[in-house]
Amino acid sequence: MPAFFLSRLILVRHGESAWNRDQRFTGWADVDLTAEGVAQMHDAARALVAHGLAIDAAFSSVLLRCTRSLWELLDAADCTWVPRVLDWRLNERHYGALTGRSKPEAELTHGKEAVRRWRRGYDARPPLLDADADATAQYIPLDGRYADVPPDSLPMGESLHDTVQRVQAVWQDLLAPALRQPQTVVVVGHGNSLRALIKILEGVSDEDIVAVEVGNASPVVYELDAALRPTARHVLAVPPRRASEIL
Amino acid sequence: MPAFFLSRLILVRHGESAWNRDQRFTGWADVDLTAEGVAQMHDAARALVAHGLAIDAAFSSVLLRCTRSLWELLDAADCTWVPRVLDWRLNERHYGALTGRSKPEAELTHGKEAVRRWRRGYDARPPLLDADADATAQYIPLDGRYADVPPDSLPMGESLHDTVQRVQAVWQDLLAPALRQPQTVVVVGHGNSLRALIKILEGVSDEDIVAVEVGNASPVVYELDAALRPTARHVLAVPPRRASEIL
Repeated sequence: MPAFFLSRLILVRHGESAWNRDQRFTGWADVDLTAEGVAQMHDAARALVAHGLAIDAAFSSVLLRCTRSLWELLDAADCTWVPRVLDWRLNERHYGALTGRSKPEAELTHGKEAVRRWRRGYDARPPLLDADADATAQYIPLDGRYADVPPDSLPMGESLHDTVQRVQAVWQDLLAPALRQPQTVVVVGHGNSLRALIKILEGVSDEDIVAVEVGNASPVVYELDAALRPTARHVLAVPPRRASEIL
Repeated sequence: MPAFFLSRLILVRHGESAWNRDQRFTGWADVDLTAEGVAQMHDAARALVAHGLAIDAAFSSVLLRCTRSLWELLDAADCTWVPRVLDWRLNERHYGALTGRSKPEAELTHGKEAVRRWRRGYDARPPLLDADADATAQYIPLDGRYADVPPDSLPMGESLHDTVQRVQAVWQDLLAPALRQPQTVVVVGHGNSLRALIKILEGVSDEDIVAVEVGNASPVVYELDAALRPTARHVLAVPPRRASEIL
């Protein structure tokens, strides 16, 4: 019989971004939400409120689609005072030289089999960003948000395995200590950084994790025991949108 | 000759709130910004960008008019990734039983001289909130944002002196350590919590500080030496608003 849960961890993938809509590899490119993406985060907030889930602490990546998603979630849940920590290690998997390309474009250049392997292989790294190539250099992050990251830790392209390793570090440094309070913690993340957290929490195999999908703005709620083992997982139903919020 | 400055502290009072517009005592009541207040924060962001001021770290109170002002400032300055800390000790002076009243209403109840003393005396406390009185009990903060504050530290009404004391504590605990990095730190605060910071920085007397006014969304930039003494103060000119932003 599982122990009573002590803490809750709520995973929320950011709302729809402009490149989700256009089906481009986004990675660390700093693409904003669409209006639909903002509305999705309001939906997610209503789902949390409808289930009586009050947020005590919040974490997100340093990418705009996550920082805005987190703000819209907290604002719509009427708790903009919640303490929040932004960490680059919760960023999306870095897609290297595929950044900004659509899947068909990437397949034309590299072939279908290579693109399938980069998307679905746990250890496959895409071609790295090249600081000397005009077409990709624009995606190398130069602004202050990465100033404190050791240069040899800043990726130029990652496998899912690489992403899992940095998410593991942020789990140990920040998330696990916050969950031991105990309290309700929300992480607003990306498709692959949330995959990494699900792998860590549920012990999913390298082979199986590549097929796990997390939908935009659909809250996944884990109840955790004192050892931070999941005792339950709920994917929240999102209440119908009010007419004034339908785009 | 003053030493070269090492750090910058930028003080920004929140944009216009609904009760600024209506000239009501606000204190800890959680009143939102007006549309003009949001536009003012965008103006402030353009002023910072026009002066080449990049924010490294941000602080605000836990009241909505400040959390939203900070978000709008960072979003308009294109740096929503900046680390931020929210602290109740940066809240506005707590106006006790005057909360929600207009100045004429308060004068009718308490007399002009009493209201003048509460507004302009350094040590004068207004009548305290009364948990048993319907008219004022609605302003006693019960939600999670104050859960970690020791109950005997939570004010039911403050003099400016009381406010200065808690701001002094947050200066020592958070702001001074952040400024010693060195770096550029922004504090989004309230009329009286920013008065308190100006008193601490400039050593303004108890008598003179009550007359210091900080306008909504007008950035005041201090340059500080290694001992965190001000070597210069600039009140930033705000660039003209673009036609699309005029309300």
